[in-house]
Amino acid sequence: MSVEKNMPFSDEVFADIADQFGTPTYVYDEAGIRDNARQVNEAFSWSPSYINYFAVKATPVPAVLRAVKSEGMGFDCSSDTELHIVKRQIGGNNQVFYTSNNTPDADYRYADGIGATINIDKLPYLEQVRRALGRLPTTMAIRYNPGELKKTGDDNSIGEPQYAKFGDTEEHVLDALKHMRDGGVEEIGLHTMLVTNNRNPESFAETARLLRELAEKAEMRHGIDISFINIGGGIGVNYHPDEQPVDVAAIGEAVGSELGPMGIPIVSENGRYITGPHGYMLTRVTHGIIESHIKFLEVDTSVNNMARLATVSSAYHELMVLGREDDPRELMTVVGSMCANSDKFFKDRMLPKTTKPGDLTGHTRCWRPYAV
Amino acid sequence: MSVEKNMPFSDEVFADIADQFGTPTYVYDEAGIRDNARQVNEAFSWSPSYINYFAVKATPVPAVLRAVKSEGMGFDCSSDTELHIVKRQIGGNNQVFYTSNNTPDADYRYADGIGATINIDKLPYLEQVRRALGRLPTTMAIRYNPGELKKTGDDNSIGEPQYAKFGDTEEHVLDALKHMRDGGVEEIGLHTMLVTNNRNPESFAETARLLRELAEKAEMRHGIDISFINIGGGIGVNYHPDEQPVDVAAIGEAVGSELGPMGIPIVSENGRYITGPHGYMLTRVTHGIIESHIKFLEVDTSVNNMARLATVSSAYHELMVLGREDDPRELMTVVGSMCANSDKFFKDRMLPKTTKPGDLTGHTRCWRPYAV
Repeated sequence: MSVEKNMPFSDEVFADIADQFGTPTYVYDEAGIRDNARQVNEAFSWSPSYINYFAVKATPVPAVLRAVKSEGMGFDCSSDTELHIVKRQIGGNNQVFYTSNNTPDADYRYADGIGATINIDKLPYLEQVRRALGRLPTTMAIRYNPGELKKTGDDNSIGEPQYAKFGDTEEHVLDALKHMRDGGVEEIGLHTMLVTNNRNPESFAETARLLRELAEKAEMRHGIDISFINIGGGIGVNYHPDEQPVDVAAIGEAVGSELGPMGIPIVSENGRYITGPHGYMLTRVTHGIIESHIKFLEVDTSVNNMARLATVSSAYHELMVLGREDDPRELMTVVGSMCANSDKFFKDRMLPKTTKPGDLTGHTRCWRPYAV
Repeated sequence: MSVEKNMPFSDEVFADIADQFGTPTYVYDEAGIRDNARQVNEAFSWSPSYINYFAVKATPVPAVLRAVKSEGMGFDCSSDTELHIVKRQIGGNNQVFYTSNNTPDADYRYADGIGATINIDKLPYLEQVRRALGRLPTTMAIRYNPGELKKTGDDNSIGEPQYAKFGDTEEHVLDALKHMRDGGVEEIGLHTMLVTNNRNPESFAETARLLRELAEKAEMRHGIDISFINIGGGIGVNYHPDEQPVDVAAIGEAVGSELGPMGIPIVSENGRYITGPHGYMLTRVTHGIIESHIKFLEVDTSVNNMARLATVSSAYHELMVLGREDDPRELMTVVGSMCANSDKFFKDRMLPKTTKPGDLTGHTRCWRPYAV
């Protein structure tokens, strides 16, 4: 219930939006997005020239991207599509970090052309970048995969890192760093990304420690001074009203205890934490409550507009029927019109018995349309 | 290995297709599709005027749809998009069965306008159809959900039917049939669809028996003569080379033992069985075998072009590197370029050690691009 009581817009505002733009539609709360952007900036303010590169994939909506940019954020891109969105729709002077994998030459050239920092995924791509650009960039980074060294597991890690397709081994990374230094790269960075939708400060501290230890090895073995560290993203969101909000200040502090003493710039690439709590999907009830073996509430969209539900089995989003918050409730399952039994938004929810065709429903934590 | 040895095209033909159309691309074997269409027609030839309405969603490719039409098939549509594809891209005189759910009035009107048989999902939609069209059609059907009466479970049922969003209870269906008869509907049909990718004749026989018993109740209770029965689709495909091919003749015979004596037309809506074994995805190796903690083979597409892999956890598809079938092999994981760890085509496959950038890979049983 707590989520429902904290809607940033009145029912009248949602109704006006539905009338003007139709349903289904995604609605973003800019003030809330800016507030979370500031929380992240504040949590890492111990770092010299900290920057969060907002993960464009989180919410690839130009108005949202412009808002986070004006809060001092850059852009984390992982595809040429995202590079094009930033280049063409956000205006000039963007700070871009390009973390791709299995990358065509042309995409490296495009990234370099718009001034993005190229972050290679594995050792062999260093030679590909050199070939594609005809030189190495003056600033670049490489993605580290610590494999079994990453111990702090939880439900929201990306699984066992050694089987993840991203990043390279310690030996390969150290080798790449040496080639970068010898190839004239002036600012060399380290990157990793090991968790997703994570709320545990200890896990972020562990990631930071692994990066610090790798930087120390680079110094000891090759005399390389790492210029910056990208700790990745993965700060989570409380989807269920019973979950505690994430303590982003505690995460910043935990990371700072590991990396603060290094005195070098720390960067990150959080997306979900910034926009996740502030996106809403607005749908309209079509046929009302329909009874078969169980009761269904039919709405005017399907899970293709909220694909997280089709691919993340544990996905939970709050749902309210606007204006009926205080009505008596009963159990129902919310469905769209797709010919797939997986087209169920929410199974077995207590929702107002009084719900009628034409009512508006608000779905919370809907930061990312279409993509998963 | 058996699948690999049974490719319908030579490596040269695949190479020509890749050169002409680029990769990734889907390739369909028309002769194989026609052969499976004939197998289905033959298996149910005991039924007077049997027709399989090909499930358009299975392979919504106009050339494929034209091929199955010329084998005597109609089209099973479950969305207005599919109705439009059939109406606009396949030519005239199509037999269409429209099985939708949570349907807008306009879609019922469009379906009726192109002569489709409207199959309502639940009792309340009968009044919606009457309102939308200003009358009831002369031919229509309703979808039955037998709930707990369906016993033959297997890995590929749609789960416990009573929790599925499709179809209505026995009481509601009988009520709807009476309203149809009283409303002047001349040909009344029954429909259900309870399994997906199923290979067990017993399960199809059970579904047929449930429909026969319902038809008998309609006769006993309301004196209604059911004009036709749609037994749904769900005939499966052998994805793994160790799996036996489906015995479609045995399925036809099992259904016939239940429904044959009724002497009325039986129809079905199989899609996967027709095109499933005859679709191939052709991709090209980008960077070859890349080694980190494990070995990866990188190809020039991602799981968005084969979405079944992202949503069906047990999905298996054979993969071959063309021209290297006899080379020594090693374990690797095939990946695309998407920034998602789920962008893995096939984990831990034994594939040729000799695989090089530029090689073509053929992925079998790829009947349905994009959709799941």
